[in-house]
Amino acid sequence: MKPFELDERLEHDSRLLITLELCQVRLMNDRRWPWIVLVPQRPGVIEIFELTPLDQAVLTFEQMTVASALKTATSALKINIAALGNIVRQLHVHVIARQEGDPNWPGPVWGFGKAEPYAADAEQKFHKRFLDVLHS
Amino acid sequence: MKPFELDERLEHDSRLLITLELCQVRLMNDRRWPWIVLVPQRPGVIEIFELTPLDQAVLTFEQMTVASALKTATSALKINIAALGNIVRQLHVHVIARQEGDPNWPGPVWGFGKAEPYAADAEQKFHKRFLDVLHS
Repeated sequence: MKPFELDERLEHDSRLLITLELCQVRLMNDRRWPWIVLVPQRPGVIEIFELTPLDQAVLTFEQMTVASALKTATSALKINIAALGNIVRQLHVHVIARQEGDPNWPGPVWGFGKAEPYAADAEQKFHKRFLDVLHS
Repeated sequence: MKPFELDERLEHDSRLLITLELCQVRLMNDRRWPWIVLVPQRPGVIEIFELTPLDQAVLTFEQMTVASALKTATSALKINIAALGNIVRQLHVHVIARQEGDPNWPGPVWGFGKAEPYAADAEQKFHKRFLDVLHS
């Protein structure tokens, strides 16, 4: 089987925060909402249920670790977690920090308006804050 | 702690298909897309990471069982799985069968247009088909 290669669109739209046992943890370059994507490093997987049972368990653990850290790091009102894949088929799980009054609250973030890139210092600040919470 | 009670809006919008060890598995009354909601029967839980680790593992297993059966029962192109909770806070996980060309493809289903209720016979047919696949 071919080795894992990150989908080009995911690579273009996001930056690596950290690599866990199974997943790349990536920050979407859109400052409208803190938006992380977990990408299991397994080639050819589209649906979560195509992962092995062990990988499913690890994914659940990594999702929960990231979601909980993201809630703490951002004081989000609600965390949204989703695996959609209607556009980019490579399995990826969205973990998004939502606040009342954010640009599409309480609607979903996908397909809404245009991404607004981070300024470099704001992205670095988020990156540091998120990893500090993740490792605490 | 208070016993589990299903949120009124979830109760109004969906019908029980089957109860698993952890979750009620419910069909949203919207024939635009086969749309299932899993509701863990735990009182007061909003975020998935508030479940115990054991419940998280069981939820993952039940999600995967339902998602895989839904894909087989509907020949869906893509399964969408999501825990949002921006409107109804009680933890619930959406599992939706998507097809190219469905009413909001490839966008998300939430907040799009109005639900179109099933005819009684179509709902019964789906119910039987889904449970047949789930038990096979």
